Amino acid sequence: MSITSQNADFINLEGCNSIPLTESDYYIADYFADEDEIRNRTRTSVHRSSFRHHSTVSGIQENIPTIKNGACMWINVTGVHDKILLSNISRQFKIHPLVVLDIETNEQCTKLDIIEDALFLVVKLIYPDQISRKTHVEQISFYVKENILITFQQNPSHIFDRIKNRIRQNKGRIRRSKIDYLFYSLVDTIVDQYMDVLDIANTKLETIDHQLMQHLSRDTLETVYDLKRDMLDYRRLISPLKEIVNRLQKEEETQIIQESTIIYLKDLYDHVVQVTDTIDTYREMLASFIDFYMMLNSNAMNEVVKTLTMISTIFIPLTFITGLYGMNFDNMPEIHWKHGYFVSIGLIVFITLCMIFYFKRKRWL
Amino acid sequence: MSITSQNADFINLEGCNSIPLTESDYYIADYFADEDEIRNRTRTSVHRSSFRHHSTVSGIQENIPTIKNGACMWINVTGVHDKILLSNISRQFKIHPLVVLDIETNEQCTKLDIIEDALFLVVKLIYPDQISRKTHVEQISFYVKENILITFQQNPSHIFDRIKNRIRQNKGRIRRSKIDYLFYSLVDTIVDQYMDVLDIANTKLETIDHQLMQHLSRDTLETVYDLKRDMLDYRRLISPLKEIVNRLQKEEETQIIQESTIIYLKDLYDHVVQVTDTIDTYREMLASFIDFYMMLNSNAMNEVVKTLTMISTIFIPLTFITGLYGMNFDNMPEIHWKHGYFVSIGLIVFITLCMIFYFKRKRWL
Amino acid sequence: MSITSQNADFINLEGCNSIPLTESDYYIADYFADEDEIRNRTRTSVHRSSFRHHSTVSGIQENIPTIKNGACMWINVTGVHDKILLSNISRQFKIHPLVVLDIETNEQCTKLDIIEDALFLVVKLIYPDQISRKTHVEQISFYVKENILITFQQNPSHIFDRIKNRIRQNKGRIRRSKIDYLFYSLVDTIVDQYMDVLDIANTKLETIDHQLMQHLSRDTLETVYDLKRDMLDYRRLISPLKEIVNRLQKEEETQIIQESTIIYLKDLYDHVVQVTDTIDTYREMLASFIDFYMMLNSNAMNEVVKTLTMISTIFIPLTFITGLYGMNFDNMPEIHWKHGYFVSIGLIVFITLCMIFYFKRKRWL
Amino acid sequence: MSITSQNADFINLEGCNSIPLTESDYYIADYFADEDEIRNRTRTSVHRSSFRHHSTVSGIQENIPTIKNGACMWINVTGVHDKILLSNISRQFKIHPLVVLDIETNEQCTKLDIIEDALFLVVKLIYPDQISRKTHVEQISFYVKENILITFQQNPSHIFDRIKNRIRQNKGRIRRSKIDYLFYSLVDTIVDQYMDVLDIANTKLETIDHQLMQHLSRDTLETVYDLKRDMLDYRRLISPLKEIVNRLQKEEETQIIQESTIIYLKDLYDHVVQVTDTIDTYREMLASFIDFYMMLNSNAMNEVVKTLTMISTIFIPLTFITGLYGMNFDNMPEIHWKHGYFVSIGLIVFITLCMIFYFKRKRWL
Amino acid sequence: MSITSQNADFINLEGCNSIPLTESDYYIADYFADEDEIRNRTRTSVHRSSFRHHSTVSGIQENIPTIKNGACMWINVTGVHDKILLSNISRQFKIHPLVVLDIETNEQCTKLDIIEDALFLVVKLIYPDQISRKTHVEQISFYVKENILITFQQNPSHIFDRIKNRIRQNKGRIRRSKIDYLFYSLVDTIVDQYMDVLDIANTKLETIDHQLMQHLSRDTLETVYDLKRDMLDYRRLISPLKEIVNRLQKEEETQIIQESTIIYLKDLYDHVVQVTDTIDTYREMLASFIDFYMMLNSNAMNEVVKTLTMISTIFIPLTFITGLYGMNFDNMPEIHWKHGYFVSIGLIVFITLCMIFYFKRKRWL
Repeated sequence: MSITSQNADFINLEGCNSIPLTESDYYIADYFADEDEIRNRTRTSVHRSSFRHHSTVSGIQENIPTIKNGACMWINVTGVHDKILLSNISRQFKIHPLVVLDIETNEQCTKLDIIEDALFLVVKLIYPDQISRKTHVEQISFYVKENILITFQQNPSHIFDRIKNRIRQNKGRIRRSKIDYLFYSLVDTIVDQYMDVLDIANTKLETIDHQLMQHLSRDTLETVYDLKRDMLDYRRLISPLKEIVNRLQKEEETQIIQESTIIYLKDLYDHVVQVTDTIDTYREMLASFIDFYMMLNSNAMNEVVKTLTMISTIFIPLTFITGLYGMNFDNMPEIHWKHGYFVSIGLIVFITLCMIFYFKRKRWL
Repeated sequence: MSITSQNADFINLEGCNSIPLTESDYYIADYFADEDEIRNRTRTSVHRSSFRHHSTVSGIQENIPTIKNGACMWINVTGVHDKILLSNISRQFKIHPLVVLDIETNEQCTKLDIIEDALFLVVKLIYPDQISRKTHVEQISFYVKENILITFQQNPSHIFDRIKNRIRQNKGRIRRSKIDYLFYSLVDTIVDQYMDVLDIANTKLETIDHQLMQHLSRDTLETVYDLKRDMLDYRRLISPLKEIVNRLQKEEETQIIQESTIIYLKDLYDHVVQVTDTIDTYREMLASFIDFYMMLNSNAMNEVVKTLTMISTIFIPLTFITGLYGMNFDNMPEIHWKHGYFVSIGLIVFITLCMIFYFKRKRWL
Repeated sequence: MSITSQNADFINLEGCNSIPLTESDYYIADYFADEDEIRNRTRTSVHRSSFRHHSTVSGIQENIPTIKNGACMWINVTGVHDKILLSNISRQFKIHPLVVLDIETNEQCTKLDIIEDALFLVVKLIYPDQISRKTHVEQISFYVKENILITFQQNPSHIFDRIKNRIRQNKGRIRRSKIDYLFYSLVDTIVDQYMDVLDIANTKLETIDHQLMQHLSRDTLETVYDLKRDMLDYRRLISPLKEIVNRLQKEEETQIIQESTIIYLKDLYDHVVQVTDTIDTYREMLASFIDFYMMLNSNAMNEVVKTLTMISTIFIPLTFITGLYGMNFDNMPEIHWKHGYFVSIGLIVFITLCMIFYFKRKRWL
Repeated sequence: MSITSQNADFINLEGCNSIPLTESDYYIADYFADEDEIRNRTRTSVHRSSFRHHSTVSGIQENIPTIKNGACMWINVTGVHDKILLSNISRQFKIHPLVVLDIETNEQCTKLDIIEDALFLVVKLIYPDQISRKTHVEQISFYVKENILITFQQNPSHIFDRIKNRIRQNKGRIRRSKIDYLFYSLVDTIVDQYMDVLDIANTKLETIDHQLMQHLSRDTLETVYDLKRDMLDYRRLISPLKEIVNRLQKEEETQIIQESTIIYLKDLYDHVVQVTDTIDTYREMLASFIDFYMMLNSNAMNEVVKTLTMISTIFIPLTFITGLYGMNFDNMPEIHWKHGYFVSIGLIVFITLCMIFYFKRKRWL
Repeated sequence: MSITSQNADFINLEGCNSIPLTESDYYIADYFADEDEIRNRTRTSVHRSSFRHHSTVSGIQENIPTIKNGACMWINVTGVHDKILLSNISRQFKIHPLVVLDIETNEQCTKLDIIEDALFLVVKLIYPDQISRKTHVEQISFYVKENILITFQQNPSHIFDRIKNRIRQNKGRIRRSKIDYLFYSLVDTIVDQYMDVLDIANTKLETIDHQLMQHLSRDTLETVYDLKRDMLDYRRLISPLKEIVNRLQKEEETQIIQESTIIYLKDLYDHVVQVTDTIDTYREMLASFIDFYMMLNSNAMNEVVKTLTMISTIFIPLTFITGLYGMNFDNMPEIHWKHGYFVSIGLIVFITLCMIFYFKRKRWL
């Protein structure tokens, strides 16, 4: 029974049991779904070629390599749309069919399930598209059981590269720790990614703030509403993580989370809180922008209407007077007065002064 | 004592005790109220004829067929308005009169009651009307007790057909499980139906979003408010289900829910959360649409009023000047000047330039 | 010591101990305050004459009739403003002075108190006035202790007539049950009354909805705000009942609520939830009406201002041109051109076409 | 060591140990800070002279009079700004320095502290100023310990006069009860005062409601916003009391609250709930007023703009026509037609009728 | 191994073990990061020179001075950007690397962590900039363990000077208490600082309130929105403190908080509540300002548009009449009437009176 689908590549990094590592044995395996399909699906700016650079494509093995007692194994599956690959993996590690269903779909919301002795975590990876400046959302699932951590991604990404390098170079605490620390490190990487995404949003917010002070075009308005919707999405995707990290700290049933990792989970919790707080702040800032713009608009409108009213109120009566003496009646005594014209000019000036006085009193000037 | 009303049909599928099924004995019985009445009441697009196709109308029996120990029975009652049918059923299965009252009425809100050793669940089926593109709401009641599950519908529908087929063909887990898994499957079907309804709403939302960018007619406005009201209704009908599924997971009193089904209930819970989250998102999107439209409107209004003001502010004073020299006074020295006309034209041009300069400074141009 | 005030009537229905009832002895006593005063106070549409029809006015007795062991007694006091009647009753049944104070006042909000071995419930009866189409609010207090239930009303009403008849005719469960079932029945009657009041509100809502589509007059606007205020009042009066009925289900201290009645209280709870849900829905609908009207208004305003602007923008420049050639300067070369008039007409037509083209481009037409 | 500051008056009512009271010995002592200072500070409408009327200024004593076992003592301190008086009192009764700090300041929010065996309650007295129709807020602190109750007021007021009289005349339950009942009575008096303040607000609300129906002046608008701010303040000051009274009912640590007083605290709780409910209702009413006014305003604006548009739309084209034939071109054939004038009049009438027809169709008329 | 970075100064006040203090030995040590860097970073109005005045720069020691049993030590580290200094301190006191990370960053939100036997508190210091009238936010971290309290500041400030002086002069309770009281005093100082910042905000609010009554310029509008954003920030920074101080009161794990300090923490809690309440009040006041301004604006707009409409409605028809008789048709009978002119004047007056009457009836005048 083959563990992979026809085109799945088995990438085994440092995990050859012939090269035992000093402190603890760490196996990393990268499974890929059909490459062509991935390539078609991948419209993100991730440079696939550079990604393949540091991974060794091994042959397909019948079974999972037997791992030593106490050694940790991280299996990273890319391309959850490949049903054969997925079913092979799930059969090998006895993953519950409902869990497999959750892994497959992209619609699943952020959640943590405890299934017998395994932890199943679904989080959303949010990453910016450098070209369109929009953000994409991808589902990453974690399945942790004893010493084995399986991660499921939809598309190939660089997100876990830094962690892989650290394990390979034996930097940091990961190689000296149990699987739970690796689990923490991966989730932490995703949360850090949220911060980067929010930094981009922050830049946009500052641009809007600047534009708002001068003139709000329809484009800016649309950017405001796009950002508002993004923040709405982010909050929906990220806010459950708060409760989840909290539960992980207290999780004792599966005995996966070690005592020593809890302090790191506390730190992770602080990060998640920071992210959700930032989102809420941005949301309130956007609401404030709209309010502020509405007030500016209303102020400007008032000014415009006042100008119109003043001009009309002054000139319409004057025009009436000129019309009056423009009539062609035979018998109009004023017309034949010697100073009639100058009297009418005087009347016009007088009315204008009255109007200006009236506007002054009304504080329109 | 007859269990059915005069016109009720007793449909017994695979449930003849003479044909025992391998894994567990499963009895399905479909009771119908007076057909004519149903036909009159049914204005939905459900094609009744095709519905009757795969059901066998059996004769009316005095009593419920005795079922083997451990066998499960599902009785599906269609047409809760038929009081005789309902009272027969309730007497047979000793259903509490208040529960019967809840089944009868369509006004009951979504709820779960535990009555001694029985579970009583009321949920709302929401299904779209293909013709009017509106949605209808119907009440479906579940009464679960030991190995018996009774469902009560108002009108005949295809909603449970897939489940019936799966039982008949012995596909999936249902035949191998207890009644609680069937109960879960039926509720899950209804929740899946919610998703379909929300998909239709989503299509409408996208149409509105597109129309909004150009011009918002009164019709679109009414669609927005209709959708808003629908979302309000859906939230009211569906949100109690969240708490209910949660309670079902912990329900131990009646011993109906098996340990093995809890993982499916967790999955159901995730689905319900997803539905309510989607509803909330749609609600916020609709609110955002209205806000956005208001701002566009306000922006457009501003533009219009500015145009009006500019035209008026430039031409009203000019018209006054022409009126002035259109007066018929005998003694108007300027009129007889040789270049009087050209001086007045010059004045008009000068005033126009001043105005344009003023508007430039005010950023109206 | 007389139990009643000077003019209080003692109405004893079926409660003469000489006529024992089969299943359980049930005593009903109606006490009335000074009739004249009640008549003056009663400006509602309750037909007093028909009310007196089925009640027997008995003489005033010194003491409460001794009741058999296990028999239930319901005393209905009408006219809580009669201090002497109230103090007599309270002395007889040892009601705490603070409770009496709560009964007396109409300002008390809906609440449940447990005082030693007695339940004290204050609810609000809301009933429509057929003439003015407004609703009146009246306080009804329940005092339950062992086998005795005392109800206190402000004005005579038909609200409990149906229950009285059912007891008299020995219909339903009341006569076969303890006092707690009667208590439930009475509160249920009041909650049913809420539904009727909300039905009237619903009719009004539909009328508004219909009017809104055409034209919103000031009157309709006032109806909207009156309804909004009514809903606010209803929510304030009814929403505490939810918590109260919940508490009653768990109430074990006083041993008044029997195990068998709890299922009825659950049903009552569902009804209360339904009422409060309906109120919330109506509130949101009203808010939605106002929003919708505001948008229609804003839309209409935009149309009007656009029309004004178009007319002004086209004709004001044209009028300026006519004014220009209406000036009386001696030396105006164009005037004496042979085709001057037709050239000016041509200019006017050209300007008009330009304007129309501009409006087309701006999508105002 | 003197217990009072230089000018503090020691007022001992009925508390001379030589006059033992029948049921329980009740001592009331009124301490005053420097009178001149109080007089300067008191700009309220409290008539100081009448206040002094029923108090006996005693000499200053070194120590608190020793009180009999079981006797209750109420010390009422007026003028918390007098640091010497305060420090004397606090030293005598061993009040914690932090509590003294809370008493001194006026900024403390409503709160209940349990300090060892003493209760410390800070509430706000709200009283109307008869002249300016505004309300003043003053802090009243209660310190209860065993049989001693000390109240601290900022300015002299009549608020506790009724209670003092009741004790002096031995009316009501106070003299027969422990110190906790006195404590309840005093807090109840303050809560009753809230009701009076809200009654004044209610009168204002009704005036606004009436004015709103006709015309909303700037003054009324300011009253609305003043009331809104008042309601905001009241809610902030009063709402913590709800929780506090609730806690007092369950307070068992200090053994100050007797079993028999709990029913009175329940009643007090009902009153506080009523006050906060009323405040919320008023807040919603004010919000509703503003909404309603905005809609009326918007409606009126629409009417005005429609009128403007109709007048302009009808007359501007007509004026253009008159302008056209007012031009002085030599060669204008129409002018010399015999019926030219009447044709132009006909044209004008025709255009007017077209316009009116157009407005009818647009429902502007 | 040196405990400080190259330029860090070791300031030891009264902490020379050769001068033992009477009640308890109190050591205060001030560590500074590179002065030049601090000077560059410090753009606040803190006068550094005066700050150095009362501190003695000691030499750098290898180790922390050994402290007597029961003596307390307070180490104040200024300049958390100095990585060498920070790592030395953390190594000496065995501070967890994650805690060091939290100290270093300025982005950490307000929080309390309990790490084994140590308390780690992060709060935000908000202080006004006297020149720009804006506020700066700085992070202050507290690390408490047994008898040692370490505070970490970003920039030098005077905030703790008063406490240092009190310790030096042995005033107040600090020298007689354990380290927890010092901890409380320092946090209390920061909370008091919040009050000062809110007082400045209050002044701004009053200015706005005053300006609003006359005219709202764009500048004031921006101040309103700046204040709104400030309040949003403050609430985010300060509100977690409420929960934190509450937790500190109940904290028993680390045995740092003494029984006697709890009453002071209660007081601190009241202060924090007061601060957050004030912020909420200010937020609601700002919202109310904007609402009020919008209504004033809308009112003023109405007035302006009414004026425009009245002038136009009166004069446009009149101008039409004058235009009519200004036409040059040969055959216009009215023109040659003897009283034609006066009849037309009469017509004009009549129309004007009709209009005025119409406006009166419409209540526009």
